[in-house]
Amino acid sequence: MKLMRIGEPGAERPVLLTADDLHLDLSALTDDIDAAFLAGGGLDRVRQAAAQGELPRVDVTGQRIGAPIARPSAVLCIGMNYAAHAAETGSAPPTEPVLFYKAPNTVIGPDDDVLIPRGSAKTDWEVELGVVIGKQARYLDSPADALDYVAGYAVSNDVSERALQLERSGGQWSKGKSCETFNPLGPWLVTTDEIPDPQSLRLRSSVNGQPRQDSTTADMVFGVAELIWSLSQVTVLEPGDLLNTGTPEGVALSGRFPYLAPDDVVSLSIDGLGTQAQRLRPA
Amino acid sequence: MKLMRIGEPGAERPVLLTADDLHLDLSALTDDIDAAFLAGGGLDRVRQAAAQGELPRVDVTGQRIGAPIARPSAVLCIGMNYAAHAAETGSAPPTEPVLFYKAPNTVIGPDDDVLIPRGSAKTDWEVELGVVIGKQARYLDSPADALDYVAGYAVSNDVSERALQLERSGGQWSKGKSCETFNPLGPWLVTTDEIPDPQSLRLRSSVNGQPRQDSTTADMVFGVAELIWSLSQVTVLEPGDLLNTGTPEGVALSGRFPYLAPDDVVSLSIDGLGTQAQRLRPA
Repeated sequence: MKLMRIGEPGAERPVLLTADDLHLDLSALTDDIDAAFLAGGGLDRVRQAAAQGELPRVDVTGQRIGAPIARPSAVLCIGMNYAAHAAETGSAPPTEPVLFYKAPNTVIGPDDDVLIPRGSAKTDWEVELGVVIGKQARYLDSPADALDYVAGYAVSNDVSERALQLERSGGQWSKGKSCETFNPLGPWLVTTDEIPDPQSLRLRSSVNGQPRQDSTTADMVFGVAELIWSLSQVTVLEPGDLLNTGTPEGVALSGRFPYLAPDDVVSLSIDGLGTQAQRLRPA
Repeated sequence: MKLMRIGEPGAERPVLLTADDLHLDLSALTDDIDAAFLAGGGLDRVRQAAAQGELPRVDVTGQRIGAPIARPSAVLCIGMNYAAHAAETGSAPPTEPVLFYKAPNTVIGPDDDVLIPRGSAKTDWEVELGVVIGKQARYLDSPADALDYVAGYAVSNDVSERALQLERSGGQWSKGKSCETFNPLGPWLVTTDEIPDPQSLRLRSSVNGQPRQDSTTADMVFGVAELIWSLSQVTVLEPGDLLNTGTPEGVALSGRFPYLAPDDVVSLSIDGLGTQAQRLRPA
């Protein structure tokens, strides 16, 4: 299934996008696509209601697309999780997942504007497979059942300001990751039935139509199941949390491309998860 | 004023602790001490209702004390913000604030048990002045008005597992900061009228009654006002967010004291903000 949230920021309505491109209103089932909905069997209720033809159509013409989930309780990010990206930043691939966080209020709609922080010149893109947690995960026994804790997947742009991340940070990356608007997400939350193997997805980014990143999740150092298992040993993952699984090579930090400037348009896509595009604006 | 939340986890009741040690029920004014309450003038309503004698007494005998705020949307932490602590970890004092995050679900009551992560041996204490944000802060003009964005202060224990933070982290500290139960907070949210100068507070910690940290917030590298102003240039602070402002020297990481073991009791106190104590248990 593909779930969406449509409407103005803070007033999004939950919607199901069907295989034949109809938008069905989920408001009668839930107020939002949030922790309570995901942990409380909400996806099953949507599946059932859709199968029984109980969901009314809704006209979303011209309306804003929001992030496909409510503001997460945490946004966990994995650094250096593609060997070629680690190399372009001058690092060796890590021996276990590198975890950092971004502020959850960075999550915005997939096509909302991204704001370049005041006084900064190194805003960069990072296409990532976003994983949305479906139920609380704590000390999982093994990676074997870790995908059971996934609600679905979404395209995620882990926008980064490199001076704040690397030059003015004392080595802690979060400062360059938590600026306003720095996590476009969506357009869809695609449930796991449509993505049986998260490690075979092509992911791409472009700036003003020029290709930048073009890789596959097969090249992750640590796959989704191993990440969830590993993280569950050191923290408690909550339903509705967003996990950004790392970005492949092809970002501006490599020196091969210029950083983003006002009016640039970044576009990101992942197989089966749709496409998002943001225009850059000064904050 | 001193605000508290009393009751079982997830079902805490908001309470006012008066100067003559009465507990007054705030349930008629608000469901919780959260972002909506703080941003919507809730503290003023409490002050008014208390002055008019409108608040009923409530018997809290034997009940658990919760964290004095609902789960924050973010827990921001400042590293190396006391020169002597930077020195004991082998670092020079930073030239601008070092920001990292911990998972917001680490916030627990001031006297709840702290869980030592499975397979770990380096759990450490960090007494810190916790600052609770009162209204959204974005690109503040100067530190001069930054304290207007503070709702109040609380004792915060930024519990840390040093192997996860420093040896298994790829340099990103959050992995050793976000373990379950790793942020005891409280007992009180003390409003700013009681703490006119947050840079003159003595803060102390002990383990099993033996002194560990004993310093003053006067020794912060960056004071509270400068931190809030600085952070507001790189992220948006939300009402109800928790800012841990760094810890002074005297932690186990220094090599001068052993790490925490099951059944140890850590106690932390800050002038005017009360005392908290946690027993250590295996996760």
